[in-house]
Amino acid sequence: MSFMYDEEIDGPLPTVDRADLATALRAGAPELEILTELEDLRPFECDGLAAYRTVPLLVVLPSTVYEVRAVLQIAAARGVPVVARGAGTGLSGGAMPLEKGILLVMAKFNRILEVDPHACIARVQPGVRNLAISQAVAQHDLYYAPDPSSQIACSIGGNIAENAGGVHCLKYGLTVHNILKLDMLTIDGELITLGADAFDSPGFDLLALFTGSEGMLGVVVEVTVKLLPKPQSVKVLMASFDDVACAGGAVADIIGAGVIPGGLEMMDNLSIRAAEDFVHAGYPVDAEAILLCELDGSQDDVEEDAERVGALLREAGATELRVARDEAERQRFWAGRKNAFGAVGRISPDYYCMDGTIPRRQLPRVLKEIARLSDEFSLKVANVFHAGDGNMHPLILFDANKPGEMDRAEALGGRILELCVEVGGSITGEHGVGREKINQMCVQFNSDEIEYFHAIKAAFDPSRLLNPGKNIPTLHRCAEFGKMHVHHGKLSFPELERF
Amino acid sequence: MSFMYDEEIDGPLPTVDRADLATALRAGAPELEILTELEDLRPFECDGLAAYRTVPLLVVLPSTVYEVRAVLQIAAARGVPVVARGAGTGLSGGAMPLEKGILLVMAKFNRILEVDPHACIARVQPGVRNLAISQAVAQHDLYYAPDPSSQIACSIGGNIAENAGGVHCLKYGLTVHNILKLDMLTIDGELITLGADAFDSPGFDLLALFTGSEGMLGVVVEVTVKLLPKPQSVKVLMASFDDVACAGGAVADIIGAGVIPGGLEMMDNLSIRAAEDFVHAGYPVDAEAILLCELDGSQDDVEEDAERVGALLREAGATELRVARDEAERQRFWAGRKNAFGAVGRISPDYYCMDGTIPRRQLPRVLKEIARLSDEFSLKVANVFHAGDGNMHPLILFDANKPGEMDRAEALGGRILELCVEVGGSITGEHGVGREKINQMCVQFNSDEIEYFHAIKAAFDPSRLLNPGKNIPTLHRCAEFGKMHVHHGKLSFPELERF
Repeated sequence: MSFMYDEEIDGPLPTVDRADLATALRAGAPELEILTELEDLRPFECDGLAAYRTVPLLVVLPSTVYEVRAVLQIAAARGVPVVARGAGTGLSGGAMPLEKGILLVMAKFNRILEVDPHACIARVQPGVRNLAISQAVAQHDLYYAPDPSSQIACSIGGNIAENAGGVHCLKYGLTVHNILKLDMLTIDGELITLGADAFDSPGFDLLALFTGSEGMLGVVVEVTVKLLPKPQSVKVLMASFDDVACAGGAVADIIGAGVIPGGLEMMDNLSIRAAEDFVHAGYPVDAEAILLCELDGSQDDVEEDAERVGALLREAGATELRVARDEAERQRFWAGRKNAFGAVGRISPDYYCMDGTIPRRQLPRVLKEIARLSDEFSLKVANVFHAGDGNMHPLILFDANKPGEMDRAEALGGRILELCVEVGGSITGEHGVGREKINQMCVQFNSDEIEYFHAIKAAFDPSRLLNPGKNIPTLHRCAEFGKMHVHHGKLSFPELERF
Repeated sequence: MSFMYDEEIDGPLPTVDRADLATALRAGAPELEILTELEDLRPFECDGLAAYRTVPLLVVLPSTVYEVRAVLQIAAARGVPVVARGAGTGLSGGAMPLEKGILLVMAKFNRILEVDPHACIARVQPGVRNLAISQAVAQHDLYYAPDPSSQIACSIGGNIAENAGGVHCLKYGLTVHNILKLDMLTIDGELITLGADAFDSPGFDLLALFTGSEGMLGVVVEVTVKLLPKPQSVKVLMASFDDVACAGGAVADIIGAGVIPGGLEMMDNLSIRAAEDFVHAGYPVDAEAILLCELDGSQDDVEEDAERVGALLREAGATELRVARDEAERQRFWAGRKNAFGAVGRISPDYYCMDGTIPRRQLPRVLKEIARLSDEFSLKVANVFHAGDGNMHPLILFDANKPGEMDRAEALGGRILELCVEVGGSITGEHGVGREKINQMCVQFNSDEIEYFHAIKAAFDPSRLLNPGKNIPTLHRCAEFGKMHVHHGKLSFPELERF
């Protein structure tokens, strides 16, 4: 079943004349930048899920809240769908355009409006880059904690849409834990404030509901983020293992012992070798797996935790243990991890990056099963991931030019995600559902649960104009998916019978 | 405007015959305990908001998920409203019964089903007491972090309904940050699982939406909570101030310096004297305010933070600084704070406990304004609160037997909550909206925002059978409240005009 929008399965869309729509938008917002020529539209045909491309009907780049409102109101009046886009770095196709829809690019909303170092908050526009926030507040020894690998480019608005995580989310939480308040426009152009400057807000928690909703409930126009004081001290340990499952076990040991590292990352042999060839991080190329464990906090605390973690790693079977001697070596250790995807891209014509989450204690079992599936599908899989929070990123290596390999990679990816669900995890950690996981949502949730998602969607956007076809599958799609889908007799859904 | 359910303002309810309903329930769930006699119903006529009482139509005490489902399905079929109740300790009347409704008491769901010390989670039934979780896992050196003052009695199900906090939520978060997954029954008796064993779940964040929804979306039947390792070391500092605003300023200084205390509490002179008379905590009875600051973590860290905090407190104008010398003194320091409400109850025939939240930096301004309002209304106000997260608990002292005092106390309470909204805060911190704050919701939110709450409610419970009249006011109620309500020309709502 294709990742592309399918009107029969995902719902019909009206056919709208591009020139007519552009004329209406110009009338409603005279200063609005509108792109309608194919050569201008082409750069927006995909986001970070680059294997799937659609040229949008047209692109708008508003620079004021009034312009965003005008676009939404005109779209609502004409029944034209709207896909909002931040920096376009998302990996699940959440900002993939529709050929019958407007692509609303928020890139011009790039101002940091206010920094209050005393209250540890910043008020920013949604197009501000994630890293730009930390850079702007570094003078106050503060930073913004969530750090997706794309943080140099990705925008805070996109981070909210996908509830982005990163290396540090194990200790400091996801985007939803690091924002206080946001202003958003509904499809009707109403301005709604979610959350508050205070730490809690009465009524239903719409701020959390909105975070991770992938542009299906409204369009963010302003956000207040929390800032954290920079840790006094940081230390990175690298442990080598000659068995992947042992490395997985060590992760559970560390967390179970009550240490919450700033980051706890794992790479398998294939990733280690690819990364080492690429950035010369100093990784042990013969190891079956390495763990990178970053500890942050006060100097004494970090020293103490480093000793405990070192002992736990040795007990778990680490064959070598190294501590980054200085900041330069620490940066090198991380450079390998942060460039792992790019490094794998050098050794394979194509790769498919998965993003499943599992309970930590299931790591050894799941890693073994992925190795078995890799054999079964005759496709290599490199494992690079946020081990501490059980967020796996298996990279499936394939060559799209070889007949059938891409389909096989997709099928293997589906099996890995179902495995995640089977062990009590979920089909996405931090990349979101977008278009990519739309079928797997039918595995994660039963039709009753999906109906509640649709009911919530309908509460905000009854005409389904905001990012249709993403995040929440239609029941029709799940029925079709069920027909073609073999359940392996293992998947279980919560039923009353277990009580 | 009264706190009692008003069918004209809150929506009509059908009149149901008690005996008929009991017969139907007995037929649907033969083992179900059902109370129908007035003497049995009386103990359930209120929760912790004891000033307002209603005898329910009948009470059921199910002991299985099947029985809960039977009750909900029978209620749904007959259009009878259902109010779920945990331990009945809630302070905003969230579990206040309806004279035309079933009170669903979850007290028999009191089993801890599973503790997994390795994964740091526990699976429990909703009627389990908050403190019982920490007691059950203490052998593994773990604990459950949220600690409302009622933790010895309150249930985890009620904690979820109100998104309960406590002294430690500044550092460790509210209930929503400390649960992973829950199973709930909808009004139609469908079992829905929200969240996952993994750290994130795809689709809309229904777990966060449900937490704090005050029993309006479904009934929790099982919950998986996160457990934390007990801190190695704990230390409490007590600082005295001769000016309340200075104490408020010190709070912002501490947080602004990057120290996140385990707890940071403030009491004013009236509370100090009441508490000292009651529990002999060793408080300085001449101080205008005290701050209690608890630091937890590794031994070295705590020592270091204690020095920094001590210096900051002195700079902020502390006149005396004491560190609890041992565990016994630490417990005494906290005993005064934890019994402050009871202590105030000894010096006044009645008191009205408020629960507003404000941005920390507004503490000095708001404390001054509360003092002014106290004079204006000729009612004493004792201030006891979670200063670190800006969660205020002004206690308004009054005598219900003196004509007009109770109305004046309510009016003063309303003014204090509006003041919280005015400075960018909210009308509730951890006690919830329930019945008590239903009118103030009309101040916190505009009618567009309230319509979204209703639309979400309708997605789960279109017939409004689950806890009607709580949490989200009808638009009719807000219109009535607006008529009687003087806005003081100061309240502002987010409008597009500010952009």
